[in-house]
Amino acid sequence: MTYRAPLQDLIFSLRLAAGREALQADGLYADISGGVAEQTLAEAAKFAEGQLLPLDRAGDRIGARFSDGVVTTAPGWREAYAQWREGGWNAIAAAPDHGGMGLPALLNAACTEIWNGANISFALCPLLSHGAIEALEAHASAALKEAYLRKIVSGEWTGTMNLTEPQAGSDLALLRTRAERNGDGSYRLTGEKIYITYGEHDLVDNIIHLVLARLPDAPAGVKGISLFLVPKFLPEASGAFTRRNALRCAGVEHKLGIHGSPTCTMLYEDATGFLIGEEHNGLACMFTMMNNARLSVGLQGVALAERASQAALAYARERRQGRAPGARETSAIVDHPDVARMLLTMASLTAAARAICFETTAAQDRAHRDDDPARAKEADERASLLTPVAKAFSTDIGDEATSLAVQVFGGMGYIEETGVAQLMRDARICAIYEGTNGIQAIDLVGRKLAMSGGAAVRREIEDMRALARESDYANVAEAVESFAQASDYMAQAMKASPAEGLAGATPYLRLFALARGATLLEKGAKRARRENDPNAERYEALSHFFAKNVAVAAPGLARSVTEGGASVTTAAGMLKG
Amino acid sequence: MTYRAPLQDLIFSLRLAAGREALQADGLYADISGGVAEQTLAEAAKFAEGQLLPLDRAGDRIGARFSDGVVTTAPGWREAYAQWREGGWNAIAAAPDHGGMGLPALLNAACTEIWNGANISFALCPLLSHGAIEALEAHASAALKEAYLRKIVSGEWTGTMNLTEPQAGSDLALLRTRAERNGDGSYRLTGEKIYITYGEHDLVDNIIHLVLARLPDAPAGVKGISLFLVPKFLPEASGAFTRRNALRCAGVEHKLGIHGSPTCTMLYEDATGFLIGEEHNGLACMFTMMNNARLSVGLQGVALAERASQAALAYARERRQGRAPGARETSAIVDHPDVARMLLTMASLTAAARAICFETTAAQDRAHRDDDPARAKEADERASLLTPVAKAFSTDIGDEATSLAVQVFGGMGYIEETGVAQLMRDARICAIYEGTNGIQAIDLVGRKLAMSGGAAVRREIEDMRALARESDYANVAEAVESFAQASDYMAQAMKASPAEGLAGATPYLRLFALARGATLLEKGAKRARRENDPNAERYEALSHFFAKNVAVAAPGLARSVTEGGASVTTAAGMLKG
Repeated sequence: MTYRAPLQDLIFSLRLAAGREALQADGLYADISGGVAEQTLAEAAKFAEGQLLPLDRAGDRIGARFSDGVVTTAPGWREAYAQWREGGWNAIAAAPDHGGMGLPALLNAACTEIWNGANISFALCPLLSHGAIEALEAHASAALKEAYLRKIVSGEWTGTMNLTEPQAGSDLALLRTRAERNGDGSYRLTGEKIYITYGEHDLVDNIIHLVLARLPDAPAGVKGISLFLVPKFLPEASGAFTRRNALRCAGVEHKLGIHGSPTCTMLYEDATGFLIGEEHNGLACMFTMMNNARLSVGLQGVALAERASQAALAYARERRQGRAPGARETSAIVDHPDVARMLLTMASLTAAARAICFETTAAQDRAHRDDDPARAKEADERASLLTPVAKAFSTDIGDEATSLAVQVFGGMGYIEETGVAQLMRDARICAIYEGTNGIQAIDLVGRKLAMSGGAAVRREIEDMRALARESDYANVAEAVESFAQASDYMAQAMKASPAEGLAGATPYLRLFALARGATLLEKGAKRARRENDPNAERYEALSHFFAKNVAVAAPGLARSVTEGGASVTTAAGMLKG
Repeated sequence: MTYRAPLQDLIFSLRLAAGREALQADGLYADISGGVAEQTLAEAAKFAEGQLLPLDRAGDRIGARFSDGVVTTAPGWREAYAQWREGGWNAIAAAPDHGGMGLPALLNAACTEIWNGANISFALCPLLSHGAIEALEAHASAALKEAYLRKIVSGEWTGTMNLTEPQAGSDLALLRTRAERNGDGSYRLTGEKIYITYGEHDLVDNIIHLVLARLPDAPAGVKGISLFLVPKFLPEASGAFTRRNALRCAGVEHKLGIHGSPTCTMLYEDATGFLIGEEHNGLACMFTMMNNARLSVGLQGVALAERASQAALAYARERRQGRAPGARETSAIVDHPDVARMLLTMASLTAAARAICFETTAAQDRAHRDDDPARAKEADERASLLTPVAKAFSTDIGDEATSLAVQVFGGMGYIEETGVAQLMRDARICAIYEGTNGIQAIDLVGRKLAMSGGAAVRREIEDMRALARESDYANVAEAVESFAQASDYMAQAMKASPAEGLAGATPYLRLFALARGATLLEKGAKRARRENDPNAERYEALSHFFAKNVAVAAPGLARSVTEGGASVTTAAGMLKG
C-alpha cells in the first residue's frame, strides 16, 4: 500500500488556517513564509514516504517484542529513528533556548499528519517526546531543563507520559503511585503505571518518564497530584547517564493495532525522581502537554483517514466490477455511484477534520505569537474551545474513513495482506487515548463552553454565520443555526440539569464539528476559486458533497441534544439493573 | 467474556413478528405453540453457552490452520461439532422429506442469533450448510437429494457456496470457472474459487461444494452460469463416499477476524460435478440460498451487537471512574450520562435490527405457510423487500455496537485479552459478505422497490403510518413521512436519473431501517405494556431513546437522498482523476 503526503492539500489548509496575510513576510508566520513551509513539508514527505512508510507493515506484523524487561522494536526501526534525529525533525516546534527551531505549531501539525500517515506506530514516539518537551519548557526548573531538555529536543533521548494506573484511567483522582521526599530535593517513586507508550524501547540510550504521583501529605483527589521527571538512567558522579534507575518495564500489551508501538506496564520501585513545577500542582503541568497531545491525536485521525482515502480511491480506480449506469462494459468501481459516495464521504470528512485541526493549531500559534494581549487571549480561548472538537471529531472520522476503506476493498479489505484492515485497527485507539472522545465532549460542554461567560463559543458562531452567508448551500447556514440553538440549550442545561446536558455532549460535539467543517470547507472552496488554485474544482466538489450529505445531519443532532437527554436520564435506573 | 442468550427478548420479538394469534394452536405457528418455542430456545441457549461460547477465544487465538491441503480447526471444535449434530440442531428448519424438522424459519432465526452470539466462527459452518440445503431442496434432482441432502441435513456432511473468483466478486458475470459435459450426465469443473467459508476442514468426513461455473456453450454474463454439486468425496462402486474428487484447498486467508472459520482458496482440477437445476440457470438457484443467507448474516450482526451490548453493560456497571452528576463518591461509569448514551445506542439499535430481521423472517414463513395465495404472495414480496434492509442495517449496527463496546471499555477495549476487540474484528466481515451492504442498497432501490409497481413498499409505508399514529413521539411519524417522501423521489429517480438514485441508495436503506425500526420498537413497547410484560419498562425506554436520538436522523437522510445525489454525480470526473 502506498501513501503520498498530500502536500498541496496540506499547504492549502495551512494557508487557510493561517489567515489572509499570514504567510507574508510581515505576518504572524514570517518565519515560514517565502517557501519555507513548502520546502519543509516536501522534505518531510520525502523522509516519511522513503523511510517510515516501508516500516509500517513490519511494525504491524512483527511488532515491538518484550523479553525479560527489554523491548525490541521491529527490524529497521532503530535505523529509521537515527535518521529521524539526524534530519532534525524532532526539534521543529521546540523553543530555541534548548536547541529547538521554534517554528510554528501549524507547520509542526502538517508534519505530524505526514509522519502519522506514513507510520502511526513510529510517529507515536516523537509525539510523546514532544509532549514531554512542552511540559518541561513550561514548568521545569532551569537545572532540569539544562540536564534533560536539550537531549529530548534533539531526539537523543525520548520522553513519556505516565498517567494511567489500573484503577485510574479517565479519573486521575484515583491514582495511587506514591512519591516520598528524599531530603536532598529528589524523590522516591513507587507504583504501577499502565498503557505507557514507548515506556521502554531500544531506539535511544535514555528514556525520560514524566510520572504523576502523590506525596504522603497530598490532599485527596486531583489537587494532590504532583508531576515528576524519572529518567531510566541517572547521572553518575562523572555526569554520564549510566546509573540505572529503579524502574522497569513489566510487559507490553497485546493490542488490536499500533503493534509497532510498545504499550508498556511500568513499575517504579523506589525510583529516583525530580519534581516538575510545584508539589500538588502536577495536573496543571500535565494538562499543558495533554492539550497539545490531544491535537496531535486528532491529526493522527486525519492522517489515517487521508491514507485510507488514498488507498480506497486507488483501488476503486483499478478494480473493475459490474456496469455503472449507462456503461456498456464492465466499469471501474469508482464509477458506481454508491462507491463514489463512500469515497466522497471519506475525502470530505478528512478535509473537514484537517481544516478544524489546523484552525485550532493556528489559534495556538496566535495565542503564543500575537503581540496584542487581547487578541492573544481570544486566540488562546479559541484553541481551548476547539481542541476537544478537533481531537474527537478527527479520531471519529478516522474510524469511519478507515472502515469505509475496508468496505470499498470488499472481501480484499478483510484480508490482512491488503493493509487497509491494519489502518482500521491502528485508527481505533485514537478515539480512546489522550482522553476518550466522551471525555472530550464532557470537557467541551462542561468547561470550554463556560469560558469567559460563553464568549468564545459566541465568537465562533459569529464567524461561522459570516461564512454561511456567503455559501451557496442553505444547509450550511442551517447547520450553523442548529449549532447556535443547541449551544443556547446546552449553556442553560449545564446549569439547570447537568445530567441532561451531559447526555447530549457527544451529539453536541459532532454538531459543532459539522457546522465548523461545512463553513471551513466553503471558505476554502471560495478562496481556491478566487485564487485559481489548481484544486479548486475538487475543493468545491468536496464542500458541495459535505453540505448536502454530511452537514444535513445537523438539525437531527440538534434535536438529539435539545430533546434527547430526558430519554437517557430516565433510562438510568433500567441500566443500573 | 460472558454471553447469555437473551431469551426473553428473543421470545418477545418472535411473538411480535409472528403476529397477534401466531403462537396459538390454530395459527400460522401452531407447531411452535404451547411452549415449544420457549423450550427449544432454552435448550439452544444451554448448548450455545455451554459448548460454543467457551471455544470462541481459541477460535480467534489459534484459528483454523492450513498445512499441505489440510485444514485443522481449533482445539475442541471437532467435539463441539459432533455434539451439535447429535443435538439435532442442524435439522431445525430443513424440510421433513430428508430428515429435517420443518420448523418455522422464525424459530431458526432466533436460534441463529444464539449460535452467532456465542461463536460466529463456529456458526458459519451450519449457516453455509443451511444455504446448501435450501438450494438442493428447491432445485436438485431426486437422485441428488437422495444421495446428498439427508446427510447435509443431519450434519454428517457440510455444504459450501462457491461463488467468488479473484476477478469476480460482486460481479458474478465475470466468473471463469469452466464446466464441461462428461457425456454420462456428470460434468468436469476447472477453476479457482476464493473466500470459500469452510471450504476445507476436519469437522466431517465429506464436504459438498455448490459451485457456480460456465459451460463451453454458455451465453456471456450472468445468464450463462450453471450451478453444480461437487463433493469432496465421490461414491465408490460400493456406494461408500471414499473416492477423492479432483479438488483441493490451496490455502486459507489471514483475516481481520472470524479466525476460527477457515476462508479457503479452492482449486477445481477436472473435478467431477453434478448439475443442480437447469443449465445456465445457476444464478436463480444460487439466489435461493443467498436470500436466506443474507438474512442469516443480518442475524449475525444482531448477535454480535447483542453480545457487545451485554459486555459493555456488565463492564459499565462494574468499572468505577469519576463522579456522575450529583454523586458524592466515585461512580460506576454506567451512571455517567455519556456512557449511558452509548449503552442505550447499542441496545436500541440491537432491538430495532432484531425486530426488522424477525419481521422479515415471519414474512418468509407466511409466504411458505399461508394457504391464501394472495396473502402468501404479498408476504413473499414483503420478505424480498425487507431482506436487503435486514442484512445491511443489522450488519452496519453490528459494526457500530461492537465499536461502541470497545469505546465503553476504553483502553481495556483496545487490549485483545478483554475480548471486545475480537467482537469488532469478527463483526466487520458481515457488511461485506453475502453481497456487500452497497449491493444490498442497490438491490433495494434497483429491484425491490419496483416489485408489483411499488405496491410492496406502499404497503410497508401504510403499516408504518398506522403504528406511528399510535406513537407518543412525533419523531416516529416524521421518520415514516421522511421515508415516504424519499421513496417517491427514489421511484422517480431510478427511472429518470438512475445515477442520482443509486447515489442515494445507502442513505435510503438506512432511512428505511430507522422508520421501520422506530415503528416496530413502538409497537413492541405498547404491546409489552398492554400485556404487563416484565420488560415493558425497558422496551419503552429503548423505544423512547431510539425515537429521540436515532430516528431523528431521518429527515437529514431523506435530504441526502433527495438533494444529495447531484453532488455525487457531478464529482464523478474528479474521482476518476
